[in-house]
Amino acid sequence: MPHYQAPLRDQMFVMHEVLNVGAVYADIPKYAGLDADTLNQVVDAAGKFCGEVLFPLNRSGDEQGCHFDAATNTVRTPKGFRTAWEEYCAGGWPALGADPEFGGQGLPLLVQNALYEMLYSTNQAWAMYPGLTTGAYECLHAHGTPAQKNDYLPKLVSGEWMGTMCLTEAHCGTDLGLIRTRAEPQEDGSYRLTGNKIFISSGEHDMTTNIVHLVLAKLPGAPAGTKGISLFLVPKFLLDSEAQTGERNRVLCTGIEHKMGIHANSTCQISLDGATGYLVSEPNKGLNAMFVMMNGARLGVGMQGLGLNEVAYQNAAIYARERLQGRSLKGVVAADKPADPIIVHPDVRRMLLTARAYAEGGRMMGYWVALELDKSLTHPDPVVRKESGEMVALMTPIVKAFMTDNGFQSASLAMQVYGGHGYIRESGVEQYVRDARINMIYEGTNAIQALDLLGRKVLRDNGAVLRRFGEQVAAFVDEHDTDPAMKEFISPLVDLGDKVTKLSMEIGMKAFGNPDEVGAAAVDYLRVLGHLVYAYFWARAARVALDHAADNDPFYQAKLATARFYFARLLPETAFHITAARSGVDVLTSMDAALF
Amino acid sequence: MPHYQAPLRDQMFVMHEVLNVGAVYADIPKYAGLDADTLNQVVDAAGKFCGEVLFPLNRSGDEQGCHFDAATNTVRTPKGFRTAWEEYCAGGWPALGADPEFGGQGLPLLVQNALYEMLYSTNQAWAMYPGLTTGAYECLHAHGTPAQKNDYLPKLVSGEWMGTMCLTEAHCGTDLGLIRTRAEPQEDGSYRLTGNKIFISSGEHDMTTNIVHLVLAKLPGAPAGTKGISLFLVPKFLLDSEAQTGERNRVLCTGIEHKMGIHANSTCQISLDGATGYLVSEPNKGLNAMFVMMNGARLGVGMQGLGLNEVAYQNAAIYARERLQGRSLKGVVAADKPADPIIVHPDVRRMLLTARAYAEGGRMMGYWVALELDKSLTHPDPVVRKESGEMVALMTPIVKAFMTDNGFQSASLAMQVYGGHGYIRESGVEQYVRDARINMIYEGTNAIQALDLLGRKVLRDNGAVLRRFGEQVAAFVDEHDTDPAMKEFISPLVDLGDKVTKLSMEIGMKAFGNPDEVGAAAVDYLRVLGHLVYAYFWARAARVALDHAADNDPFYQAKLATARFYFARLLPETAFHITAARSGVDVLTSMDAALF
Repeated sequence: MPHYQAPLRDQMFVMHEVLNVGAVYADIPKYAGLDADTLNQVVDAAGKFCGEVLFPLNRSGDEQGCHFDAATNTVRTPKGFRTAWEEYCAGGWPALGADPEFGGQGLPLLVQNALYEMLYSTNQAWAMYPGLTTGAYECLHAHGTPAQKNDYLPKLVSGEWMGTMCLTEAHCGTDLGLIRTRAEPQEDGSYRLTGNKIFISSGEHDMTTNIVHLVLAKLPGAPAGTKGISLFLVPKFLLDSEAQTGERNRVLCTGIEHKMGIHANSTCQISLDGATGYLVSEPNKGLNAMFVMMNGARLGVGMQGLGLNEVAYQNAAIYARERLQGRSLKGVVAADKPADPIIVHPDVRRMLLTARAYAEGGRMMGYWVALELDKSLTHPDPVVRKESGEMVALMTPIVKAFMTDNGFQSASLAMQVYGGHGYIRESGVEQYVRDARINMIYEGTNAIQALDLLGRKVLRDNGAVLRRFGEQVAAFVDEHDTDPAMKEFISPLVDLGDKVTKLSMEIGMKAFGNPDEVGAAAVDYLRVLGHLVYAYFWARAARVALDHAADNDPFYQAKLATARFYFARLLPETAFHITAARSGVDVLTSMDAALF
Repeated sequence: MPHYQAPLRDQMFVMHEVLNVGAVYADIPKYAGLDADTLNQVVDAAGKFCGEVLFPLNRSGDEQGCHFDAATNTVRTPKGFRTAWEEYCAGGWPALGADPEFGGQGLPLLVQNALYEMLYSTNQAWAMYPGLTTGAYECLHAHGTPAQKNDYLPKLVSGEWMGTMCLTEAHCGTDLGLIRTRAEPQEDGSYRLTGNKIFISSGEHDMTTNIVHLVLAKLPGAPAGTKGISLFLVPKFLLDSEAQTGERNRVLCTGIEHKMGIHANSTCQISLDGATGYLVSEPNKGLNAMFVMMNGARLGVGMQGLGLNEVAYQNAAIYARERLQGRSLKGVVAADKPADPIIVHPDVRRMLLTARAYAEGGRMMGYWVALELDKSLTHPDPVVRKESGEMVALMTPIVKAFMTDNGFQSASLAMQVYGGHGYIRESGVEQYVRDARINMIYEGTNAIQALDLLGRKVLRDNGAVLRRFGEQVAAFVDEHDTDPAMKEFISPLVDLGDKVTKLSMEIGMKAFGNPDEVGAAAVDYLRVLGHLVYAYFWARAARVALDHAADNDPFYQAKLATARFYFARLLPETAFHITAARSGVDVLTSMDAALF
């Protein structure tokens, strides 16, 4: 039986001891009244809900999957999913970070992020339903008309309805400029949408009475490519004059995909057959509006990586402590048992510590970016808002790609700890591997994230925002580099920072001559930058742990040991990725395409 | 629809242009009459069989899986599997490398290896049935009594019967010293076996009339641990006085596992309820005898890694050439199309070339080790036999672990090339990822392989056999290091060779003080050694390609480009793994087990 225990102690460590959220929120009137106890209680309660309600449905959901009924164009979700949703709504969880004006609780997005980490640990396929809904809420909240907001947001916040994002078509996922769905203006100001979408997560289900689709489509005569895309709100059921669920709209699920994982989330083919839709934001500005949703979704997918990383680690650690096989090479450890627990073997510990260091590193980064997001939206100082927004934009592709790569790697290592038993469905760990694999693909493949990072976020402003992150690192270094106990963390951090500066400049120079140099280096570059962020946070975590060395508290002992492991065994992969990133485009492009 | 084309041109390149098998076989009387045309024709015919008969059953087999009937303790394999087996036998394929004394064709194991690469590319789950049978044949051929050989080998060689290896029990996989299955001697010289085995691949099925289980069990009063294990032949049906299938033996399948992949291979729980068995080899020497089978199986699993690597690459390459999405960063490439094929993007090429370089590198290594195996068994010079046998022993864990790690990585990269479409079962590529994952686990996890390599194969003889491989590399270097065109390959090869020498000595020294240093370094060490072997063969491949530079032959152009890619973008990961391997055990063991 898989196990899950919400990592509350570590979440509190990250919020209060690493990020010092109290000091940050003290400067933000909206959150100034929030004390640490309140934050901790909310996170604790969220963890209990996830562990008690969602986790038991994870494997059964995977086994049952979703079922499509072609006669009625409906999708049946696995047993218990709808009830869990009702409990979730009754607990007010959909409202956690939402605007009080529309029924939200107005808590920081950091808290919502902590909730999502645990939702994804315990049931990624289920959590994608509220995940998409939160995205739809954010998009409409930012770009909807006042009437749209009044009609739809309260229902999304209460959880009475859910949302989706309908972007992909069969011939285009990454390249949205190619979409063919058309929107014809009607006399009443609405639009008639015609086209076919695929890969629509949570696109049809039996969990709510209505579903609010946000759909990309082209207006008549729209410019070609991404500059001719508009965004439409297309409800499954049109609203009646009381803004309640009315007539069925002509937006139909025509099939669901059979996938490697996330079986319990419906991945729908959606047919728009003259469906009624309403323009959101301005004509041809749809992609900009949708990017609100996509950026949130990308951070969310990063948390999916973290969530599966954490739960896979927890299960592998328990297995390694309990499974008896062989003896330590140093001699018998558990003399009273027929064999030693496999955790005596250094390589088992290497695998466990890899997953652990990536989970805890991801938590520091993911929560920090959520805190920056809170600042970008609510801080009274416009300069802080702007700079935090830029930092979030820089970090979003790293959160998405680095944390999902690490999540998949960690899930796979957790399976390896189990040996053959991990390959059997019963253990539960193979589901984490299958589920974690999609996170590297959807919401923009990790290569797309890398292009976004290097091309748009670093090179376009000549590294200005990256330098600002570097200054934050430098301030920490200056404060602690005279402490001999910190040398083992500070030295490699400084060294990597220098290398990142040189690498960024070198690629930037080469990109002048050939823009493909960006594409050739981007994936390795992102991995290097991800490590720079993790190294910074692991150094900060080590600082806190060292400050508590006298406490004899196992939590800080484990933190320090994990930090040391991170610097000794994970950070060094940057040497490889820097070499690879520097190797240039010619070695990739010299072979004729026909010869592949 | 997935695609497969047997890589005949590259197989011929490896056999004749890299390994020069003609010259090797000329010295071996058994194979002296074999000319290149014959070898090529056999490999070509094997590839056609695999592509035409087995490949179409791969996805249907995955979808259907195996079905267990508890009432009759039988397993039904997917539709078409039995018929394919009959065709396989009619073609004489089970007999390919087998001893003519028992009906075999007596071809080199290199050819059998090429066959197995293609079996595994086209249908790993199906190919595991003959794979285990070949292993059982080899074990009985080496250790069976004359009567056992006469009774069983011809049936295994013809394919009328199949074989299995029954090692694992629920509480022990890696640590076979813990097995509990007992064997009681009977008055007629047979034994009665009682116990339960799990994870028995091909353990029960409907493909043949009899199944020959090779079972590890303990005799009464046997020493504890691995020195008290004996090997028994336990047929599903006992033989009658005519050595034909007679009475049903009390060895029953009691269930099959539901797994992440290889659905079409039955992974059986086997109950021995007083089953009749016959001792193979000497009492308490069972593990030695079984190691014949396990070493063969480990090489075979390496070929599974290669097989899936190859087919995943082929499909991703086709997809990347055909899928239109976005435009090259350098500007429009396919102006007549709505978008450029994604192969224009450098990162797509990076993924493809990674899979390609690992496939072609694995083919060179895998075929070379098979050639060494042929020499070890058939060369007239006993010194050559001995030294080749030692080389095979050194390389076996690398073939198993490095090639399966690379196979999984390549399958996952192939999926990434497909984007969301790769996550959908229909594409076929997600099956390669699921199937490839088991190869890193079974026949000894890859960490066990690494311990075997570093502890038993390198440190135990103070690196003597590894040095012999180093001499082979040095001879090649000496021959070519004055050629400026070879410098880009020779320099990193020499550099890595020096580093391996130092690394081996350093770990050896540390292991004197603490044997856990071996476990701490082993997995990274294996990866470094794998690259040393690949770098050597890629340098040799580049040499051949350079010699043909004037031919204007696309094959050699692609070979040279892939070699350059390998040296520029894959080999550099050794920098990371050397650092990790040198980082020592303390960083892994300092944390108390209870804190994980």
